[in-house]
Amino acid sequence: MRILVLNVNTTETMTESIGAEAAAAASPGTEIIPLTPLFGAESVEGNYESYLAAIAVMETVKAYPEPFDAVIQAGYGEHGREGLQELLDVPVVDITEAAAATAMYLGHKYSVVTTLDRTVPLIEDRLKLAGLLDRCASVRASGMSVLGLEENSEAAVRAITEQAMLAVQEDRAEVICLGCGGMAGLKDSIAERTGAPVVDGVAAAVTVAESLVRMGLSTSKVRTYAPGRPKLFRNWPFAAGSLQH
Amino acid sequence: MRILVLNVNTTETMTESIGAEAAAAASPGTEIIPLTPLFGAESVEGNYESYLAAIAVMETVKAYPEPFDAVIQAGYGEHGREGLQELLDVPVVDITEAAAATAMYLGHKYSVVTTLDRTVPLIEDRLKLAGLLDRCASVRASGMSVLGLEENSEAAVRAITEQAMLAVQEDRAEVICLGCGGMAGLKDSIAERTGAPVVDGVAAAVTVAESLVRMGLSTSKVRTYAPGRPKLFRNWPFAAGSLQH
Amino acid sequence: MRILVLNVNTTETMTESIGAEAAAAASPGTEIIPLTPLFGAESVEGNYESYLAAIAVMETVKAYPEPFDAVIQAGYGEHGREGLQELLDVPVVDITEAAAATAMYLGHKYSVVTTLDRTVPLIEDRLKLAGLLDRCASVRASGMSVLGLEENSEAAVRAITEQAMLAVQEDRAEVICLGCGGMAGLKDSIAERTGAPVVDGVAAAVTVAESLVRMGLSTSKVRTYAPGRPKLFRNWPFAAGSLQH
Amino acid sequence: MRILVLNVNTTETMTESIGAEAAAAASPGTEIIPLTPLFGAESVEGNYESYLAAIAVMETVKAYPEPFDAVIQAGYGEHGREGLQELLDVPVVDITEAAAATAMYLGHKYSVVTTLDRTVPLIEDRLKLAGLLDRCASVRASGMSVLGLEENSEAAVRAITEQAMLAVQEDRAEVICLGCGGMAGLKDSIAERTGAPVVDGVAAAVTVAESLVRMGLSTSKVRTYAPGRPKLFRNWPFAAGSLQH
Amino acid sequence: MRILVLNVNTTETMTESIGAEAAAAASPGTEIIPLTPLFGAESVEGNYESYLAAIAVMETVKAYPEPFDAVIQAGYGEHGREGLQELLDVPVVDITEAAAATAMYLGHKYSVVTTLDRTVPLIEDRLKLAGLLDRCASVRASGMSVLGLEENSEAAVRAITEQAMLAVQEDRAEVICLGCGGMAGLKDSIAERTGAPVVDGVAAAVTVAESLVRMGLSTSKVRTYAPGRPKLFRNWPFAAGSLQH
Amino acid sequence: MRILVLNVNTTETMTESIGAEAAAAASPGTEIIPLTPLFGAESVEGNYESYLAAIAVMETVKAYPEPFDAVIQAGYGEHGREGLQELLDVPVVDITEAAAATAMYLGHKYSVVTTLDRTVPLIEDRLKLAGLLDRCASVRASGMSVLGLEENSEAAVRAITEQAMLAVQEDRAEVICLGCGGMAGLKDSIAERTGAPVVDGVAAAVTVAESLVRMGLSTSKVRTYAPGRPKLFRNWPFAAGSLQH
Repeated sequence: MRILVLNVNTTETMTESIGAEAAAAASPGTEIIPLTPLFGAESVEGNYESYLAAIAVMETVKAYPEPFDAVIQAGYGEHGREGLQELLDVPVVDITEAAAATAMYLGHKYSVVTTLDRTVPLIEDRLKLAGLLDRCASVRASGMSVLGLEENSEAAVRAITEQAMLAVQEDRAEVICLGCGGMAGLKDSIAERTGAPVVDGVAAAVTVAESLVRMGLSTSKVRTYAPGRPKLFRNWPFAAGSLQH
Repeated sequence: MRILVLNVNTTETMTESIGAEAAAAASPGTEIIPLTPLFGAESVEGNYESYLAAIAVMETVKAYPEPFDAVIQAGYGEHGREGLQELLDVPVVDITEAAAATAMYLGHKYSVVTTLDRTVPLIEDRLKLAGLLDRCASVRASGMSVLGLEENSEAAVRAITEQAMLAVQEDRAEVICLGCGGMAGLKDSIAERTGAPVVDGVAAAVTVAESLVRMGLSTSKVRTYAPGRPKLFRNWPFAAGSLQH
Repeated sequence: MRILVLNVNTTETMTESIGAEAAAAASPGTEIIPLTPLFGAESVEGNYESYLAAIAVMETVKAYPEPFDAVIQAGYGEHGREGLQELLDVPVVDITEAAAATAMYLGHKYSVVTTLDRTVPLIEDRLKLAGLLDRCASVRASGMSVLGLEENSEAAVRAITEQAMLAVQEDRAEVICLGCGGMAGLKDSIAERTGAPVVDGVAAAVTVAESLVRMGLSTSKVRTYAPGRPKLFRNWPFAAGSLQH
Repeated sequence: MRILVLNVNTTETMTESIGAEAAAAASPGTEIIPLTPLFGAESVEGNYESYLAAIAVMETVKAYPEPFDAVIQAGYGEHGREGLQELLDVPVVDITEAAAATAMYLGHKYSVVTTLDRTVPLIEDRLKLAGLLDRCASVRASGMSVLGLEENSEAAVRAITEQAMLAVQEDRAEVICLGCGGMAGLKDSIAERTGAPVVDGVAAAVTVAESLVRMGLSTSKVRTYAPGRPKLFRNWPFAAGSLQH
Repeated sequence: MRILVLNVNTTETMTESIGAEAAAAASPGTEIIPLTPLFGAESVEGNYESYLAAIAVMETVKAYPEPFDAVIQAGYGEHGREGLQELLDVPVVDITEAAAATAMYLGHKYSVVTTLDRTVPLIEDRLKLAGLLDRCASVRASGMSVLGLEENSEAAVRAITEQAMLAVQEDRAEVICLGCGGMAGLKDSIAERTGAPVVDGVAAAVTVAESLVRMGLSTSKVRTYAPGRPKLFRNWPFAAGSLQH
Repeated sequence: MRILVLNVNTTETMTESIGAEAAAAASPGTEIIPLTPLFGAESVEGNYESYLAAIAVMETVKAYPEPFDAVIQAGYGEHGREGLQELLDVPVVDITEAAAATAMYLGHKYSVVTTLDRTVPLIEDRLKLAGLLDRCASVRASGMSVLGLEENSEAAVRAITEQAMLAVQEDRAEVICLGCGGMAGLKDSIAERTGAPVVDGVAAAVTVAESLVRMGLSTSKVRTYAPGRPKLFRNWPFAAGSLQH
């Protein structure tokens, strides 16, 4: 089984670390293909960057020359999953949703700890649309930027752990979702300090994608995600339409 | 006052008719600038096309060389409004939201009548995110495509009127929103046949944009729609960052 | 275009200041007619006073001898808008709803800052019924009474600004609605101190009323707001039934 | 124990029949005092009439010369309960709410069958504000007017029973609330034909009022329903302020 | 009228005190029969204990040899009410729901003060399922265990009063529900200190049960709570099926 | 990895077929242990039977003598999952929830097709508590009993397929969940006829359980599902407390 794991930003070291997380979570026999988008921002922390990433991720997947069995969108709170579902006939899994759905098996309420304050509403909006907000105790920001997390300093651990503690104690979360790809390395440390299970979205998404493929399930094509009708696309260099594998 | 009105698809005749609707609704002294996106699908009827339109609309606005006072996104149920709000410091109005908010002044519940069945969930999702779904009685599809509406045939009138009648009688709507730019010409006929007020999103959005400008109000920059942080954008030919006018 | 702007209390100086706010927001050619209710409390700060105001406002509008094009109910969180909609065939706009709907174009969440703690639940209830509560971050009380605000002292500015700051910082509001007619003069000062757009309900309602009239839209008469059936009214000196203009 | 039962309209025969229903439901030792409002419409079937009734009911209670232990507002879907709660320090029970809360002890979902189609949204709004809408399967209209019900003809029985049957079979209600005072006589017949328990709001409200009095419980005065502040009331002949018994 | 009042735990002194509370709230002519479950935990403070209590309560009621008119489940936030409703054709009242529904007649929002932190989610879940959560301001834990409350020490009064104060002041509750049978003795003291009405669930449930019986109302048998179909029960010593009285 | 799969009823052939479904979905190296409850009804189709099954399932798991890595509760819409989570420190997965969460990756809305009409509210209640109801289009009953399904006749296929078709066409579901263990054999046939993906809850739960184990995640013990406090259990022959493996 081959799973494409799409970084949403164009920082290659981030693609590598996401790929490593995904590979660590994969079953034997699963091949993880981490991909950097063909274009876009070095880090995605707002709406313009996120919309650009959405279309870049779609074009990157469309341009991938080999067959594959599932796609993971590895950006937290980002736009675009619906487009991938429409273009492809293999399962598409968003890490924001996979993390939340996984957390809901583990405790009464969960919280997300993310990077910048400004990305909180984006994550809340994605969870609301996904119908996964009802048991979300809070989305909290650590104040660390995406690239700041990459450095994985003591400061990052402290800031994220502090928000996770507040989520458990004040917001009554019982599970923590790490709301950014770059946070995966902090998982054990935060679990130990809070006493709560910590879900890494990339790992969760890999297991979901594998499971869907094993069950022979993929995106429904009866309405919302049916293939697009044939259309003329002006001034857009990438091939249009859906891919068949 | 100068208002940019963005068609979401690349069919110029559609841009013209949207521009005409907007101009008809504008106050004296308001200049309506209808714009066709720099790239994208001839008609937008699904998620891939909508995400591509989102970024195309943003780049088109960014590339517009003259000053302007407000921007209207004239696609029903489309992605991208949040990105425009982040990029710009003038008000941004989405026709889906303007139509719904306007309808809510006029009756206890409203319905939207749109084109294809597959776009119904997109409109529902936009209204849910906008917090405007609570008084929505239904979103109904006429089965007419966007370009089919352009021809404005008897069949289109019949199909849309029939759904509007069902919305009023079965779903208990008291107001009808026309869920596609190309429907504006049918407004009077549908109002007459259903007895319910009919809201055209483009006209509603023009009045909202004018009102916001007159009151000196624009998008809040305190969190979600603050200007993006300086970033490196790879392989993307368009200038990044927010625009200042 | 002639718009009646109804104060909900019987303090004439308040009618004048509401009228001045409305006039400042009106387009050229719009005539603002501020009206004091024929009977009722000097200030409205609770349910009995609000219900009395509801019926007083309706009778005052019914007794107005000249034609008019729209009616604004200029009380925050007050009862009665539905009755006006039923009696009249011109548009009716409530300032609580106009402020909230306007704020929703400007930021991800909004808060209302009002006068006394006891009026908070009334405002919440109106927003819930109007289907506009979903993106409301909070309704906060400054502790100032309606008539206390009239004096517009330093204390009022401080108390309201403090609550607006807490709304932005703790409740995550991005826009502030001023929840009382008498607060309009504080708008610029609060906007400056919080960095968030500040919406004045009276101004917002004027622009909405003008827009509805310009678009030829008025209250739906298909069900909830259809004219009342002919009835005998006992011991009530005011003429019954709906008005036709 | 003395309970005031307030008809909302000025038709005395209706006051009598509501009084009889209430008396039939009362415990030994409870004195039921049915009251006709001092002014208002012969029947209440819309918003203007309902707001007028709200204030008429309040003034009628304020003018009642003897001590009393509780007040029942016997109009279905009407305005005004909050005002009574503020004015009085004895419990106030609204029949719309008492019927719904009672129905919720009896089945998974309940429906309300009311008179005219136009009153359906008023009942829905009252249930929404009361936080009792979640388990409401539907509010259905029989098409009978309030005064038409008075005649209690075969047609009324048939129309109401038919809607009750549809509520059980199509809307999945398991309990029926009769949404109008005049319907109480039909209770047994409808219960027999639908197989579902049928709740009469007046009877339910009497038992609730008695229970609250027996438990020594009354309206909280800590915030929303605290007594009104001293105010000047202009041109209003009735004494203002709250009553103490 | 004979009402069975079921303690959910097997501590007999608790059964006695619940029985005394119930008897104090009962009308003349009502016989209260307090029952201790045939098996189960000495105190119920979690899910395993609560599920065991659910089935123990059902078997205890089934084994009760005399006729009875209603059943009260006197555990706060416990499982099992739906099973009793299915087994019996007399009314079943849960104290969690009776307390909440009673509180909703008394103020705009209510809070529950319960024992241990871990029982808060159980109470929230029961209120959510019952459709009574919308006007719940908060469920707060005092940190006292069920058996600790029995001793009714100064510490218990202090801890519970403190949470009730916070509920009124910070969560904006206007009514307090005591979320455990053993708290009834603290009612007056907490009401005095908070100024808010305090509802005791056992007393509320007794009045509700009496009222339903007096109105001739019982659980609907049209769907959810219809008698179970005839079944073979393996290895379960208690007689199966529903009871008819 | 060893996963216990708990049938909720005492029909051994059903345990076998559930075990076969689970084994078919399991990864190599996963050992599926199907278990029949120690006591209870031959089929579970209502609340009493479901509560009895809840406690029987818990005791059966507690009595299981070997170590295990996860537990699946294989009853649709049944009580008890929270109790297992509290008793165990390995992951617990309910098939109702696993099916819904899996369906939500595959389409905009999903429906459940179950057996008897009376079990519909139980399933709705479980999905509501699990926070998974928001994207549920409908829960539909085929009218087939649990044991009737066992026979897997032509009638069962027809009845279930018909409801699945209505769910897709009228309720706008895009994915179907089979709401009963015994339905798994019908999966392919229904998928073919409706064109929508069909999720079998047992298979979905197996993949979820495996994934949680592989990620080292289990139930949070910080609050709701912390081990029960030491308690005296009267007249209950089974050992109390939580299990440690």
